[in-house]
Amino acid sequence: MPAISKLATEITPSATLSLKEDVSSLEKEYDFKIINLTAGQPDEGPTEDVREALLEGGKLHTYGAVQGDPGLREILSTVIDKEIGVQYTPKDIAITVGVKGGIDILMRVLLDPGDNVGIITPYWVTYPESVKLAYGIPCFLKSDENLRPDLSILRKEVKDKNIKVLLYSSPSNPSGVVYTADELEEIARIVKERDMWVISDEIYSRFVFDGKNHRSILSFGDMRDHAILVDGPSKRFGIPGWRVGCVAGPREVISALTKLQGHVNSGASRPDQYAACVAYASEKACEASNNMIQRYGENRNIFVKGLNEIEGISCIKPEGAFYAFPCIDRLFGYKYKFSDKEYTISSSVDFRNFLLRKAQVAGVEGAPFGMDGNIRFSLATQEENITCALDSIRGAVKELYL
Amino acid sequence: MPAISKLATEITPSATLSLKEDVSSLEKEYDFKIINLTAGQPDEGPTEDVREALLEGGKLHTYGAVQGDPGLREILSTVIDKEIGVQYTPKDIAITVGVKGGIDILMRVLLDPGDNVGIITPYWVTYPESVKLAYGIPCFLKSDENLRPDLSILRKEVKDKNIKVLLYSSPSNPSGVVYTADELEEIARIVKERDMWVISDEIYSRFVFDGKNHRSILSFGDMRDHAILVDGPSKRFGIPGWRVGCVAGPREVISALTKLQGHVNSGASRPDQYAACVAYASEKACEASNNMIQRYGENRNIFVKGLNEIEGISCIKPEGAFYAFPCIDRLFGYKYKFSDKEYTISSSVDFRNFLLRKAQVAGVEGAPFGMDGNIRFSLATQEENITCALDSIRGAVKELYL
Repeated sequence: MPAISKLATEITPSATLSLKEDVSSLEKEYDFKIINLTAGQPDEGPTEDVREALLEGGKLHTYGAVQGDPGLREILSTVIDKEIGVQYTPKDIAITVGVKGGIDILMRVLLDPGDNVGIITPYWVTYPESVKLAYGIPCFLKSDENLRPDLSILRKEVKDKNIKVLLYSSPSNPSGVVYTADELEEIARIVKERDMWVISDEIYSRFVFDGKNHRSILSFGDMRDHAILVDGPSKRFGIPGWRVGCVAGPREVISALTKLQGHVNSGASRPDQYAACVAYASEKACEASNNMIQRYGENRNIFVKGLNEIEGISCIKPEGAFYAFPCIDRLFGYKYKFSDKEYTISSSVDFRNFLLRKAQVAGVEGAPFGMDGNIRFSLATQEENITCALDSIRGAVKELYL
Repeated sequence: MPAISKLATEITPSATLSLKEDVSSLEKEYDFKIINLTAGQPDEGPTEDVREALLEGGKLHTYGAVQGDPGLREILSTVIDKEIGVQYTPKDIAITVGVKGGIDILMRVLLDPGDNVGIITPYWVTYPESVKLAYGIPCFLKSDENLRPDLSILRKEVKDKNIKVLLYSSPSNPSGVVYTADELEEIARIVKERDMWVISDEIYSRFVFDGKNHRSILSFGDMRDHAILVDGPSKRFGIPGWRVGCVAGPREVISALTKLQGHVNSGASRPDQYAACVAYASEKACEASNNMIQRYGENRNIFVKGLNEIEGISCIKPEGAFYAFPCIDRLFGYKYKFSDKEYTISSSVDFRNFLLRKAQVAGVEGAPFGMDGNIRFSLATQEENITCALDSIRGAVKELYL
């Protein structure tokens, strides 16, 4: 067999995939019922009106506009204006195959091989891989002890590493940190000073708790020539399997993205784009979305309080998104027995395996998010799962020994 | 504004897109009703049962398997066995965002930067761009005067150009040539001798006329370690806007493709994959597909006979796909008047514009398919359009002068 590319061998598989296999093999082998807190998606699906729209949308069976359905771009233009207060016309917006599909093509539009991309830690697992897939170099930028961007050193880091594109999510996956106006203003200043690009991943923009408002870097000063927004209906309306995302930014970037998308995949499914239009316009869907977000906020209250009561675990309170990202590295060095073997915890993968085996709770290890001392749990589940998971984690940690 | 990538500036936009704009501006400016023969897609949509399946498929709202729906892969395993006589298990098959989405990721899986890809002329417009998007180098391999792969020089060309991946479509878009068993056998021999990859694009596999059978290179000798198939439900069931394709090949390639797809776009829409399952299993859909193919075969008979009766135009008889790709370079040098200006035809774009202006018929110029002496017309339309277009072309060509 001829060789496959160096690139293909070097890309790291998505962490959640290998995890899925571990979970199911444990469930089979030990007849476990594992509480799964790994999901990067809502536990609720779309409302009926949105799902039923697929039937009408199915009539759109021919190739559509590569830039995306004009009606959906029109709606998103209004939504972006209303939610973050920035005017993008439908021409400044492209529909992509989810946020992943947007970021993948954006990297190819912005990066020459060897260009450096600054990724604020902790980060979504796909960021570094999407940079590598465009032959760029991921450079990780430090956060402070509260998992916030460390602005005291950001300017220097960006300069020293000669960053061309800055990339982050706020609300953050995995930390739940929501960037403040001051933070965004400072980042915007640095981006403009250095004439860089910034990609702002706001897919969790609706998932902000405690009545706080999401702010976007696009609304700070004149960022029009430097900032690119990625977002979409997947999380807010519970339709990640439908693969619709969007990108808004400078006309030149959107044109280039569209040109490439014409060869890369022709864009998102038309029935799904049609149904996404219905979702954004549906009061029912928006209400369901708001209720879901409130529920995740309550899950957060219970879970984070509980985690912080467990010796060895500490968790910042997420302000948004739907994850808890506790620090567990004080438990490194501890041991446990499982199935007649003794294990020592010395990494986030070890801790993840410990929880799987001894608490029957699944989280995602922090390493692929850039922090090996942490673990990510999803709050997008029923409250019952949250309280059961807490009890189990508490019980399992108690049994650890040195 | 910071610069965009060299790659993004160098990619050629899809020819059919810029054409769409020219067509609508002419229609507006001169109140023309243009007969559009540019479509790379069937004029019929899916049967009702297939479209209705989207409603049930919409319940699949969470992330699915990145490799694609297991049920669809199971069905495709059977379809591939039945249609081309090769056994691929569901593990050897991946579902992609259309054939484009498959080829884009395949290029990244197979190519290191600077690797040469041999593309048999004439070719589908996206092939060279998808190679460039993976930093590979497209190398064009000659066809003979009947637009068939020129096997007398292929071995030498492949060696001289140090080709790593060979890429073609059969039935061919744009020529309609269907490779014979002898041709495929010889190509297979060369591919194995040189330990190359070959990507066989068989998206038009069902569109074969005159009772002939489609043959696949995968069925010649042991090609399992060298050949990769791309196909999908888009053309046969009239659902290109739903963005579902598939790739079958060596387990190692499919694993790598899946790994990359996990970061690139997470795969095709789940409702659409669900409906594609229904399509492959539906007698109604298969019957509609067969009727449509027969209809395009009849269109071909009328259109190609008519074209060959026009002085200056000659067209090989397409054996499959749904295009006619006549040679029009004997009309280069001829002139015509339009809106008080005189124009000279000296390229396929000029000829395309001539037909738009003087015959109100739209075809796609041959240049982006690798042959500037030709023009592509789609046969995927009502017979009435075919006969009207013929009359108009005949009339317009008669008025040309030197």
